Amino acid sequence: MAKPNLLMIVPAKWSGLWTPQLNDSAVHPVVHGEDAYAPDGIDYVLGFRPPPGLLKTLPKLKAVFSLGAGVDGFLSDPDYPKHIPLVRFVDETLSAEMAQFVLMHVLIHHRHQRLFDAAQPKRQWRQMTLPRRTEDTRIGILGFGEIGRVAAQHLADLGFPVSAWSRTRKKGPGVKSFAGDAELEAFLAQTDILICLLPLTRQTAGILNAKTFAALPQGAFVINVARGGHLIEKDLIAALDAGRLSGAVLDVFQTEPLPETSPLWTHPKVTATPHIAAISQPAVAVRFVLDGIAKFERGARPDNIVDVETAY
Amino acid sequence: MAKPNLLMIVPAKWSGLWTPQLNDSAVHPVVHGEDAYAPDGIDYVLGFRPPPGLLKTLPKLKAVFSLGAGVDGFLSDPDYPKHIPLVRFVDETLSAEMAQFVLMHVLIHHRHQRLFDAAQPKRQWRQMTLPRRTEDTRIGILGFGEIGRVAAQHLADLGFPVSAWSRTRKKGPGVKSFAGDAELEAFLAQTDILICLLPLTRQTAGILNAKTFAALPQGAFVINVARGGHLIEKDLIAALDAGRLSGAVLDVFQTEPLPETSPLWTHPKVTATPHIAAISQPAVAVRFVLDGIAKFERGARPDNIVDVETAY
Repeated sequence: MAKPNLLMIVPAKWSGLWTPQLNDSAVHPVVHGEDAYAPDGIDYVLGFRPPPGLLKTLPKLKAVFSLGAGVDGFLSDPDYPKHIPLVRFVDETLSAEMAQFVLMHVLIHHRHQRLFDAAQPKRQWRQMTLPRRTEDTRIGILGFGEIGRVAAQHLADLGFPVSAWSRTRKKGPGVKSFAGDAELEAFLAQTDILICLLPLTRQTAGILNAKTFAALPQGAFVINVARGGHLIEKDLIAALDAGRLSGAVLDVFQTEPLPETSPLWTHPKVTATPHIAAISQPAVAVRFVLDGIAKFERGARPDNIVDVETAY
Repeated sequence: MAKPNLLMIVPAKWSGLWTPQLNDSAVHPVVHGEDAYAPDGIDYVLGFRPPPGLLKTLPKLKAVFSLGAGVDGFLSDPDYPKHIPLVRFVDETLSAEMAQFVLMHVLIHHRHQRLFDAAQPKRQWRQMTLPRRTEDTRIGILGFGEIGRVAAQHLADLGFPVSAWSRTRKKGPGVKSFAGDAELEAFLAQTDILICLLPLTRQTAGILNAKTFAALPQGAFVINVARGGHLIEKDLIAALDAGRLSGAVLDVFQTEPLPETSPLWTHPKVTATPHIAAISQPAVAVRFVLDGIAKFERGARPDNIVDVETAY
């Protein structure tokens, strides 16, 4: 039996990391943009943000694998073939990396590490106690899926009061739950550090906007590690410049790579990182796609197939 | 009955924070360097590093309270009156703050946040995967008391392999234990990030030296949040400049405040902070000393009285 063909739609610099691990496997890798292929020869797709319209040209496609936990890069394609199963990459390593990134930036903010960083080259010895105690620094997590739960647990373990807002009510030990549009404002009003971990959907696009920032306590801090589409960048800059927000950490942007001309690069209250909060490790992702394909090939279905209608 | 007199030997800028909270209490605060007092009128002392010889001039001293978890500031006084109980400040808040600081700097190093910080003002979008995975990044903690255990737990929860070295063997869930001089080298050889949380004693003074750095794996990282006396600063600078160590975070120094002339302020591989990893909160410390005095006054003994001989 011929090996199933896996079309890989990944950045050129990445495909070199992946194909060696696939060459000896039970699938045959085809690199989009490098290898020639017949559309009706493609059985599976692995990618992150395929060109819109491409997937519907593959008549024998059996399943699509998302390289990230978010699948908005597929669902934003108006021609996405909705009958084809879309499998989301859920991986402990990815959740743990994301939680590390969030925890690090909560602590850098909470412990005023940036002030010490600024004082050091000036040889300034400036002691200070914490302006706000840990037990009074309220963390609010937008989105409470796998990654949100892992992050919430670590933050609660460190003594921060943690709440989470999600579409439907979800329980988590030691985490106060808010749900739905009706409770968003109450959630925001008690959030000193807001962390966005939502999936990007029609409902959540632009949720980090002027109205949201106005509902947060004065001096709140915002961390976006979900998608650039969640944030209205000009609203953030206005809220920072007005002093409503004390700072922001952004790992994702409306346009990526973040254009050189973006004011976010050099805003004194913004930490900008190049979408690295959690990067799928090739070996782990290869195992994910091979396991998934093996299941489909024997007539089973892998876990974490996305509901294409709700994007969850 | 007259209130017992508590002599406070604290920095001038701090005494203003403390005395208001003590004025309405069951003790009478006396501020060293501000208030006149008769040596034989002093019942208790609260401080961090009293002038050597001072304590032995207080004939009716009943007990001494240390403002920090470390008591080397008392035991370095050759005239410390060893029959007087010395009470160490053990406080959950202090341990939690120290663990936060350690965790933050482990993550800043592990996640290469300093590289992203440097790339940001240059508008450079430079993605990279973790050069070393979390499960392969071995943390070694020197000292495994209350603070060490809290830090170890958080680091293990984040997926780091954690080991600890202590004078005598101690157990901790998920932490590999090394004990005594005989096992120090083996401990160091498997430590990628070394965290010093030891008490400062004759045995541990200068333990962070050239020989220790040579025993660590190439490119190891060092965090000292214990005492400046643990570190031979010139050995650290030599190890950093030779590339043996990849960096260091120092919160404590041989001389504090760190002199303006110190090369540590501007060393490109050093993060220097002004002894703020854990700062006793006035309200918590006031409760600690009032509770302790109440126990002594009714003939009981508080917890955490130090063994003056071993300094533990």
